[in-house]
Amino acid sequence: MAHTPVVDILKGQHDEGATVTVKGWVRTRRDSKAGLSFIALHDGSCFDPIQVIALNSLENYQQVQKLTTGCSIAVTGTVKASEGKGQALEIDAAEIDITGWVENPDTYPMAAKRHSVEFLREHAHLRARTNVIGAVTRIRNCLSQAIHRFFHERGYFWISTPIVTASDCEGAGEMFRVSTLDMLNLPKDDKGQVDFSQDFFGKEAFLTVSGQLNVETFACAMSKVYTFGPTFRAENSNTSRHLAEFWMIEPEVAFADLSDIAQLAEEMLKYVFKAVLEERADDMAFFAQRINKEAISRLEKVIGQDFVRMDYTDAIDILQKSGKKFEFPVAWGVDLSSEHERYLAEEHVGAPIIMQNYPKDIKAFYMRINDDNKTVAAMDVLAPGIGEIIGGSQREERLDVFDRRLEEMGLDKEDYSWYRDLRRYGTVPHSGFGLGFERLVAYVTGMQNVRDVIPFPRAPGSASY
Amino acid sequence: MAHTPVVDILKGQHDEGATVTVKGWVRTRRDSKAGLSFIALHDGSCFDPIQVIALNSLENYQQVQKLTTGCSIAVTGTVKASEGKGQALEIDAAEIDITGWVENPDTYPMAAKRHSVEFLREHAHLRARTNVIGAVTRIRNCLSQAIHRFFHERGYFWISTPIVTASDCEGAGEMFRVSTLDMLNLPKDDKGQVDFSQDFFGKEAFLTVSGQLNVETFACAMSKVYTFGPTFRAENSNTSRHLAEFWMIEPEVAFADLSDIAQLAEEMLKYVFKAVLEERADDMAFFAQRINKEAISRLEKVIGQDFVRMDYTDAIDILQKSGKKFEFPVAWGVDLSSEHERYLAEEHVGAPIIMQNYPKDIKAFYMRINDDNKTVAAMDVLAPGIGEIIGGSQREERLDVFDRRLEEMGLDKEDYSWYRDLRRYGTVPHSGFGLGFERLVAYVTGMQNVRDVIPFPRAPGSASY
Repeated sequence: MAHTPVVDILKGQHDEGATVTVKGWVRTRRDSKAGLSFIALHDGSCFDPIQVIALNSLENYQQVQKLTTGCSIAVTGTVKASEGKGQALEIDAAEIDITGWVENPDTYPMAAKRHSVEFLREHAHLRARTNVIGAVTRIRNCLSQAIHRFFHERGYFWISTPIVTASDCEGAGEMFRVSTLDMLNLPKDDKGQVDFSQDFFGKEAFLTVSGQLNVETFACAMSKVYTFGPTFRAENSNTSRHLAEFWMIEPEVAFADLSDIAQLAEEMLKYVFKAVLEERADDMAFFAQRINKEAISRLEKVIGQDFVRMDYTDAIDILQKSGKKFEFPVAWGVDLSSEHERYLAEEHVGAPIIMQNYPKDIKAFYMRINDDNKTVAAMDVLAPGIGEIIGGSQREERLDVFDRRLEEMGLDKEDYSWYRDLRRYGTVPHSGFGLGFERLVAYVTGMQNVRDVIPFPRAPGSASY
Repeated sequence: MAHTPVVDILKGQHDEGATVTVKGWVRTRRDSKAGLSFIALHDGSCFDPIQVIALNSLENYQQVQKLTTGCSIAVTGTVKASEGKGQALEIDAAEIDITGWVENPDTYPMAAKRHSVEFLREHAHLRARTNVIGAVTRIRNCLSQAIHRFFHERGYFWISTPIVTASDCEGAGEMFRVSTLDMLNLPKDDKGQVDFSQDFFGKEAFLTVSGQLNVETFACAMSKVYTFGPTFRAENSNTSRHLAEFWMIEPEVAFADLSDIAQLAEEMLKYVFKAVLEERADDMAFFAQRINKEAISRLEKVIGQDFVRMDYTDAIDILQKSGKKFEFPVAWGVDLSSEHERYLAEEHVGAPIIMQNYPKDIKAFYMRINDDNKTVAAMDVLAPGIGEIIGGSQREERLDVFDRRLEEMGLDKEDYSWYRDLRRYGTVPHSGFGLGFERLVAYVTGMQNVRDVIPFPRAPGSASY
């Protein structure tokens, strides 16, 4: 590939006077009366396009004057200092090859104008060509790379937990069934139920809702592990915070207690926010200018602050004494809602909060019971401007306590036999958390809807492309 | 987490005489008549355990003498030079906390002895505790990190293409259906067919077989992109090379032709093999010793060789003139089988081959037709010792040629409308390849069956955990 990414030129990696070839798509073309054209050429390698100067002495200048937004071109020319505003370097074109035209420019969906996010979603196969979705894509990549790097540098191993699962521990609610059975000729057993023993996996199988239980088996052998993969919820939620298919990051650490994992969550968030500010200043400037004016400052603030540890019980007290009127009433035992979380993080503390030790009745079966026998060693990270962004816990490692809890919750021990084995054979205290990747990308970019921070969003009624 | 990973001590990051705490699981315990015990403590951070010396002066020495394989312990002691063979450093224990016992050691499935891979597969939740699966897990992580790093360093963006898809371009064969319909009360339309408009996604939906078509939309905006995610095949194949769920890496590059993408494939393989040899020498030594004695040497050989470019047509000629008797007959137009590929790579050339320009009739609809109108710009990388490891192609970017090809193959243009849009609006030559991650891990480690290089393998009749 004997051509140069635009980012390399804009970063000054080629001296003035050097000959380069750049390839990409026309963002805009402007003709000057002086007999030349200015072409903004974009190749996705960074936020900015590079300006190409096309003189009318070019052999195919007449064709060049027909270029419209979205046309693909290859330009060979000389790097020179720009006289225009807003860019330092530009290219004096010696040759412009037109690679691909835009069929009927008047109806090209990605014409150079502002589009609504809803319109862009309807054209998900083309929307990466816009400033906003291009910037989201680079930020999403930057965050993903930073997450892998953060864990790798600290000796964690990436574990790909399964997507399809026939495990009984996943719980039945809101899962997608995966099957190859012919739905018009379903095999039935003698009770008239579908006979899944004849299905591909020999059992009823579903898409996973979390890799946690699986990755715990690796933590209990490799000590420090994490997942980063897709998970699924068949919830009929048409909100800006929910997707049917989303990516999760789930570290799991042996010999770690709740406080250790809270520390890990704080370090991870600060690490990835720093990476974004350092590596993608161009895109972040765009988000601060066009999407959310606090996009940069709120990340800087989070990086500079100690996260405040707070017990759930104290939080209830604070909320009750706040004098604020909340839509959902506050009482010990209720789950905190977004208004409560945001009041605490934004108004009361003014910093991210690690909320700890929730009532056991509102939390999952695997969380470790505290000595008070009323609360569990669970924690949520509440960030100003978004609310809950991370949820985690210490896991119940004591087999007898775990079994009592299963019984209390009406769950069948047999369904958890492999999970219980971890407690039967060299059990260790261990903890982990889950971070929804799209919520992280939305938080960083300031984008309002998680459907705009994943390439092809899946939601009720929507799985095109 | 105020304890030290075993790897840090074995790498000499703590001076002799330093006090450290290590936490992990007992691999073996051996009692000496001199009134002390040697405990091999493993924490997964590297291949080797660390030797712990427990003197009978320990307060709980009687308990220590009951430790068996798999028990979890925390040891605080002093780093010292080892007098034993095979390790440089060990720990003189001042204190051993026993964290978790093994219930009934006689029946503990991961007892310290050699287990068959089949037995380990039946205990997938515990098998990471063994030398072999622990080593596979670290190599798998190393390869995954190296792949992300390779692309990131070269300006590629990671794109998470969708897992669930209702796109008609995927082709119907061997896909898993994803549904939330009640199978015992299926909604039907007036033709008696299942009414998928009432299903979760409003259409019949499946698990993806490849992210390629989706990621092409991003290549045609961001230039250099790649996927790294799970893909699915509902093939009823019970072979050592097939999984129903596996991870794929699929780079896609705008303005790249077949030769560019072949170069990228060669560079990528060399880069990740180097990473493994440099970063995981401990695990690779184990694989060379116990699994495949060429595990290291064949990677070194691949790194040191230029991959040989060969046209399919020439390969057929070579095979026909080879004088070898093949199980599957050789003629122009047939797909090469594993015996052909291995003969060419191992015997004829003795180096990895990039085989190019296959007959169009045995290749996919999206591959670019060559000027001979008989072959397409496709390439496979054939590695000695395994055969095909990568498959790729230049994509047909010319709308008129693409449409003729769809027609030839009896495919409906309407089903490809969004894919055709990429050719209607600023089309560019572009190319990409696919690499099955589990086959790569199997090749690197020498493991015979891909089911042993993925945490929880999914295959016909098998989706436990």
